[in-house]
Amino acid sequence: MIKIGIVGYGNLGKGVEAAVKNNPDMELVAVFTRRNPESVNVRTPGVKVYPFDKIADFKGEIDVIVNCGGSATDLPVTTPVIAESFNVIDSFDTHAKIPEHFANVDKAASDNGNIALISVGWDPGMFSLNRLYMNSILPDGKDYTFWGRGVSQGHSDAIRRIDGVVDARQYTVPVESAVESVRRGENPELTTRQKHTRECYVVVEDGADKAKIEEEIKTMPNYFADYDTTVNFISEEELQRDHAGIPHGGSVIRSGSTGMNLETKHTIEYSLKLESNPEFTGSVLAAYARAAYKLSQKGETGCRTVFDIAPAELSIMSAEEMRAHML
Amino acid sequence: MIKIGIVGYGNLGKGVEAAVKNNPDMELVAVFTRRNPESVNVRTPGVKVYPFDKIADFKGEIDVIVNCGGSATDLPVTTPVIAESFNVIDSFDTHAKIPEHFANVDKAASDNGNIALISVGWDPGMFSLNRLYMNSILPDGKDYTFWGRGVSQGHSDAIRRIDGVVDARQYTVPVESAVESVRRGENPELTTRQKHTRECYVVVEDGADKAKIEEEIKTMPNYFADYDTTVNFISEEELQRDHAGIPHGGSVIRSGSTGMNLETKHTIEYSLKLESNPEFTGSVLAAYARAAYKLSQKGETGCRTVFDIAPAELSIMSAEEMRAHML
Repeated sequence: MIKIGIVGYGNLGKGVEAAVKNNPDMELVAVFTRRNPESVNVRTPGVKVYPFDKIADFKGEIDVIVNCGGSATDLPVTTPVIAESFNVIDSFDTHAKIPEHFANVDKAASDNGNIALISVGWDPGMFSLNRLYMNSILPDGKDYTFWGRGVSQGHSDAIRRIDGVVDARQYTVPVESAVESVRRGENPELTTRQKHTRECYVVVEDGADKAKIEEEIKTMPNYFADYDTTVNFISEEELQRDHAGIPHGGSVIRSGSTGMNLETKHTIEYSLKLESNPEFTGSVLAAYARAAYKLSQKGETGCRTVFDIAPAELSIMSAEEMRAHML
Repeated sequence: MIKIGIVGYGNLGKGVEAAVKNNPDMELVAVFTRRNPESVNVRTPGVKVYPFDKIADFKGEIDVIVNCGGSATDLPVTTPVIAESFNVIDSFDTHAKIPEHFANVDKAASDNGNIALISVGWDPGMFSLNRLYMNSILPDGKDYTFWGRGVSQGHSDAIRRIDGVVDARQYTVPVESAVESVRRGENPELTTRQKHTRECYVVVEDGADKAKIEEEIKTMPNYFADYDTTVNFISEEELQRDHAGIPHGGSVIRSGSTGMNLETKHTIEYSLKLESNPEFTGSVLAAYARAAYKLSQKGETGCRTVFDIAPAELSIMSAEEMRAHML
């Protein structure tokens, strides 16, 4: 059994917990939190919650720590610290800071003989992987990433920060005609506005100025100004009833050409439809935690990304079973 | 530059030749054939054609041989022989015989310090890879493979062997309602007949008994009897005009569940739309030839499949570039 520890018990930590339960070769050993451990109730029988600053006490008792903190402030600090004592895996998704995070985690993991895997999930993660495969196979071509229909936590939070807003949910929606054009191999040039629209469901305080709030959302720089945005005001009850889930998904599509004169066209597409973004991301993390465990068993150390991991390392099957049944 | 040799100059060999031309870090050194070399004209300026039995003379001058022979009788014999003197890659696709082929190639490659990669293409190949990733991420689920719309050479050949048939083209066509049901995550139980139909375009001799030929096609065991098959009799000119290409494609779809009680559903899909099956397969082979080269540079030996190759090995980019631009 691969002994797993989870750091952080928010939506993603819960997703990893469920994934561990559904993988017969894994067991959850402990959950670590920076909240009051008394306030955290995990769903796996017999598993206890400990303060994060006690994690080093578990050295030698946990094979892989899955770090489920946030990318903005948690992971840059905690993944290198954890890598000093454990094999560790995270879902760091601040694209621009990946090289820096990689360097920090690589040093901590290498210096202490551990293996680390960063930026694991679906984007970055499975989408990145597919971009790499597609680009390697079709070097002449163009690829597109569409996200949604799905909930963007960052955009939902941005709306919640507006005066008079009680709660909000924002869906990122790909423009279907753009997706279809890409699927047909037309290689369109698409602006930000032509690729995605933004759909907002907003609960406001009694007497709030809805017109002003709608204007504030639609003109918010970076988040909404460059998109066609629709704002729907709904009640708290409607939000709970119709928008409680955290669905997401999307597609990576590459169309490219082959032939002595690039005269032949091909399209490759990888798509996800996810009822729960954190549960799916947690499932990807669990599979890569298995890979981290296997690499550590081979004595490998240092930081890796999904690009460095052979697909076989993710599987519970033996090499012979894979070749006989999956190839 | 990675120095490539091609064995066999049929459709697949030509596809590899084009892919080598489109990869700036590769050059084609020689083509080997079991036909009369005088009868073979390659399209790459300056590249010569040699008899296959002279291949060992090129030891040390070629980094990777791409073996483009047929799976039925060529590859089981020639890939192990080539692996004695070269790094080698093939697209062996007789699923049931993969374990035996793997063992033979592994011994030859290991004994002689070379690296070999077998069963590379899209199925086996990219489809296998995606099945493995999907199964590892969603251990509770069901996956489906649909092929087409595309030309099946084996089925076209089977029709051509019927008395009175001059030429034929057979398209394998996925049943759209079945694909849609799978995409909706309905996990249908599908018979062979419910997954694919077969569409045949047949040129017959003057005065041939069309009704008899149609009956013979539709009742042919293994090839057509288990499918809804349509037979269209056309002229030689129509065949050349409308059915000269070798398009193919298909989808691997897995729907699975996550959550503490498997209450959440997800669907992952990988799809290909290919104008030319051999050119795309040749492009996959070229990318994996790069991987074989990189592994041999690290001193690795023995046989591998796509499951064993980290995605980074396929790319022309450095690890830093990949992390900065693709992750």
